[in-house]
Amino acid sequence: MSTAGLLACSAALAGQLLAASPALAQQGPAPSAAEEACKAGSGSYQWQMEKKLGLKEDGVQSTEDCLAIRKLQNRLGIKPADGKADLKTYRLLLVDEVKKNPNAQGKCPVREYRVTCVDLNRQILWVQTGKKVVYAPVPIRSGKDGYETRLGWHKIYLKRERHFSTIYNNAPMPHSQFFDGGQAFHGTYSDLFKSGSHGCVNMYAKDAKRLFDLLKVGDRVYVWGTKPGTGKRDGGRIPDDVLIAQGFGSDRIAQDPTADVPPTAEEVAAALRE
Amino acid sequence: MSTAGLLACSAALAGQLLAASPALAQQGPAPSAAEEACKAGSGSYQWQMEKKLGLKEDGVQSTEDCLAIRKLQNRLGIKPADGKADLKTYRLLLVDEVKKNPNAQGKCPVREYRVTCVDLNRQILWVQTGKKVVYAPVPIRSGKDGYETRLGWHKIYLKRERHFSTIYNNAPMPHSQFFDGGQAFHGTYSDLFKSGSHGCVNMYAKDAKRLFDLLKVGDRVYVWGTKPGTGKRDGGRIPDDVLIAQGFGSDRIAQDPTADVPPTAEEVAAALRE
Amino acid sequence: MSTAGLLACSAALAGQLLAASPALAQQGPAPSAAEEACKAGSGSYQWQMEKKLGLKEDGVQSTEDCLAIRKLQNRLGIKPADGKADLKTYRLLLVDEVKKNPNAQGKCPVREYRVTCVDLNRQILWVQTGKKVVYAPVPIRSGKDGYETRLGWHKIYLKRERHFSTIYNNAPMPHSQFFDGGQAFHGTYSDLFKSGSHGCVNMYAKDAKRLFDLLKVGDRVYVWGTKPGTGKRDGGRIPDDVLIAQGFGSDRIAQDPTADVPPTAEEVAAALRE
Repeated sequence: MSTAGLLACSAALAGQLLAASPALAQQGPAPSAAEEACKAGSGSYQWQMEKKLGLKEDGVQSTEDCLAIRKLQNRLGIKPADGKADLKTYRLLLVDEVKKNPNAQGKCPVREYRVTCVDLNRQILWVQTGKKVVYAPVPIRSGKDGYETRLGWHKIYLKRERHFSTIYNNAPMPHSQFFDGGQAFHGTYSDLFKSGSHGCVNMYAKDAKRLFDLLKVGDRVYVWGTKPGTGKRDGGRIPDDVLIAQGFGSDRIAQDPTADVPPTAEEVAAALRE
Repeated sequence: MSTAGLLACSAALAGQLLAASPALAQQGPAPSAAEEACKAGSGSYQWQMEKKLGLKEDGVQSTEDCLAIRKLQNRLGIKPADGKADLKTYRLLLVDEVKKNPNAQGKCPVREYRVTCVDLNRQILWVQTGKKVVYAPVPIRSGKDGYETRLGWHKIYLKRERHFSTIYNNAPMPHSQFFDGGQAFHGTYSDLFKSGSHGCVNMYAKDAKRLFDLLKVGDRVYVWGTKPGTGKRDGGRIPDDVLIAQGFGSDRIAQDPTADVPPTAEEVAAALRE
Repeated sequence: MSTAGLLACSAALAGQLLAASPALAQQGPAPSAAEEACKAGSGSYQWQMEKKLGLKEDGVQSTEDCLAIRKLQNRLGIKPADGKADLKTYRLLLVDEVKKNPNAQGKCPVREYRVTCVDLNRQILWVQTGKKVVYAPVPIRSGKDGYETRLGWHKIYLKRERHFSTIYNNAPMPHSQFFDGGQAFHGTYSDLFKSGSHGCVNMYAKDAKRLFDLLKVGDRVYVWGTKPGTGKRDGGRIPDDVLIAQGFGSDRIAQDPTADVPPTAEEVAAALRE
């Protein structure tokens, strides 16, 4: 077995190294005063956030919506806390909602020893000893189609604080912990909520560091589920974000109550007549 | 006629659902104090904005340029009001310039009843009753090449406040008003000034809501023109943004006064000799 | 020789005209007060910036890191000064480090007359008269693969303050100074640190203006080196950003001290057994 290949797994960063995300580069500061006006427009997850936060569900950003979303962002440490109903805020809220009992579905085996639980369905990771959660769930990005993170039991066998991929364009893999061949937990500087890795379990850099400080060689890892968008489990008809939300028990937003009522023949005829 | 297909038109959002625009997600707050330094660099529409605002036309951002652009952005409600001469600011200024008399070109039929006027050339929409504008022009995004929004007279035949596309990846279509088969007015959370829809008329979510509150089933819609970038009307030689600006009567920025004077044979020879 | 083709060189802006970068459009203001919290997360060049600034090298953003990076950004005039270890900040720091002696490598010929030195390896440009630097180095973007900026001696033969490409989609080329056929120095409004031009030497708009004000027809230009990512000089195995940094004498970040020690057979066997 070649060790050159062994330590090479990495996020799909190849094209992003020279071209670090301009969006990130342009990140503005978060509001510094409570009284600062909340001005973000409507976001892609407007309805979902309105529903979650008990706001009026109309799919349009209001000042009340903006303030409530910003308050949530501040509570969850999301930057910038601009009040926008974006994917990152939505996904981090889903994670937050299960932080007290991430194993409610019972998918991660309860053992006397410490187990790192990797749920590909919900794209989260936590650590438990027995039933006690010793590292609260955090968002992850696992392997994309064709590079799926391998399922089942694994064991941490190698830790590297400062590692760069040997086959994926020198991509940085801070705080790598290899658990199966070239597959490792490690930090990433790219967007966790977009695309997928080459098999590794990508995490926020700060989360990867905390996990690195916690785990030791020999620690057990258990992986289950399917990353939405891989494995064709849904024939591609259901969007990834809806599948992830369903994994958390959040239904998709319902159509308008009358949406299943087709227009009458008269309505259609009238519309087409002119 | 299948109603499943009937209500399916949507923006080209498929690839964007999971990957909500990082740019939007990173949106910073607008400056909160008048005295805040204006620091944005030169923007893609620097010359155009300098010309529109009566500033020195040199294609380079100055503090004076930045302050004037930011003042305009604040007047038009553009966020963030950072003073950047970007496409959004430029397009919204073009719309603002025709708000008092959007039908100066006389393309939208004047009727005793209410008509929603959809100008594909300028990518704007307004509503008029007789000659009175009852809903001021707003920016839109119509169907891209191969998915053109259909021309001529239509009639609103179905309204759905909360609708998701049945064929385009569950894409949200807030405040849908169908006027021709699967083609509808509806709000979008993606970039209005980029690409095109699958045939629908995309609008800012807040504008779509106001239009939803205004129109009733049976209201007339009139569509004319050609979305720049579709229909090959220009053989692809003239950029879309220039075509749109020309629709508004704004000429393209002229070349340097001497630009049409070719270099002399001596100049070229001298340049190539060494 | 056709003058239509002669003046047509431009940045690869075609697809960006209508769709001006949303990232730029969303640029937030820089922090206005020293005491403003520094909240940017880890950036793609976290390790590199930590090393350059003498910070703890752990690949994870700390408040100390953020403040030090923001201080640097303010010194270099980078907007927004958000403390993020992004590509732009990293590249501009590399340029800043050689500003006192850009010709330390002796690649640009020292002449009694004024020479504009274009280093494709490091993607920088400066002007020297004899050994005296009369225009400090600035970042550039030269021609991409297949459109390489031509090497060797050239001479400015035509200046156009306000120029638009005649073959590349009317792309703006502010403050053009043609030095070899259609290849010119000119300002750009797109991302200097991404992709490459069609052969021209792209610069920040403000830098292009300063160069325009400095140089005269007949001034000499000398171009050498290879733009990373072109010419296959490295077989594509070394990332562009690493090659550029190496041009500046900055080594790539070393692997973890223990990274070259392969796992023992026992470690691998244990990892694969379960």
